[in-house]
Amino acid sequence: MKFRLILSFLLLAASFRAFSQTSQPSAGADKGLTKIVIMYPFAEGKTFNMEYYETKHMPMVAGYLGTNLVKYTIEKGLAAGVPNQPLPYMAIGTFYVKSLKEYQAAVAPHIPAIRADFANYTNVTPVILVSEVVR
Amino acid sequence: MKFRLILSFLLLAASFRAFSQTSQPSAGADKGLTKIVIMYPFAEGKTFNMEYYETKHMPMVAGYLGTNLVKYTIEKGLAAGVPNQPLPYMAIGTFYVKSLKEYQAAVAPHIPAIRADFANYTNVTPVILVSEVVR
Repeated sequence: MKFRLILSFLLLAASFRAFSQTSQPSAGADKGLTKIVIMYPFAEGKTFNMEYYETKHMPMVAGYLGTNLVKYTIEKGLAAGVPNQPLPYMAIGTFYVKSLKEYQAAVAPHIPAIRADFANYTNVTPVILVSEVVR
Repeated sequence: MKFRLILSFLLLAASFRAFSQTSQPSAGADKGLTKIVIMYPFAEGKTFNMEYYETKHMPMVAGYLGTNLVKYTIEKGLAAGVPNQPLPYMAIGTFYVKSLKEYQAAVAPHIPAIRADFANYTNVTPVILVSEVVR
């Protein structure tokens, strides 16, 4: 009988945990982190190789960042959010880090290698934003 | 004895689940979702009220989206990622949704209200990108 009670409690706790995680997957989890956003603008004649970016370039840069890197993301631009406007960006990559200073120190010695790799997947210069995750 | 076995199994499963979620917080969790990215460009004389945006505007729009909305994020632009460049964006808001069509249908009747609310926190017109989460 005691085990039945413990069992019920555990199942209840597990369901509650699963439910609360599903309904609020990551609200606030990234708050306060620094985000480096690398945006590749679209223009006539500009190209972007997503496969190379995803499998080679981003893992290479992520590899320089160590435990300061919380996560990184990649998105592919599909369209402007307003009708009859050109696509603003072909792709956006982001790095979520704990410390901007550590990020800059880790990346600095590799900047020539990172820039040299650009030519392997794009012919456009990215716009880079440093931001703070508010939510 | 049977209960002890079930109990051990449940505890093991729970620990494994907790561990796998902690070590990979969200890698791939958003893959395939559509992301609407609303970017507020910086320029001389342009303003942005982050407090209003975070507490009023974004919750208002999020409220229109129902269960199609997986999460939304807000970030505050701090600096350009390249020295001696102007800040590209003052703020970026994003909505992660399961269906772009559902998003568009849900937002359409509220576009006048959304646009009218812009004046309460900014004097700049946002750049809007529709993208697909690759990673």
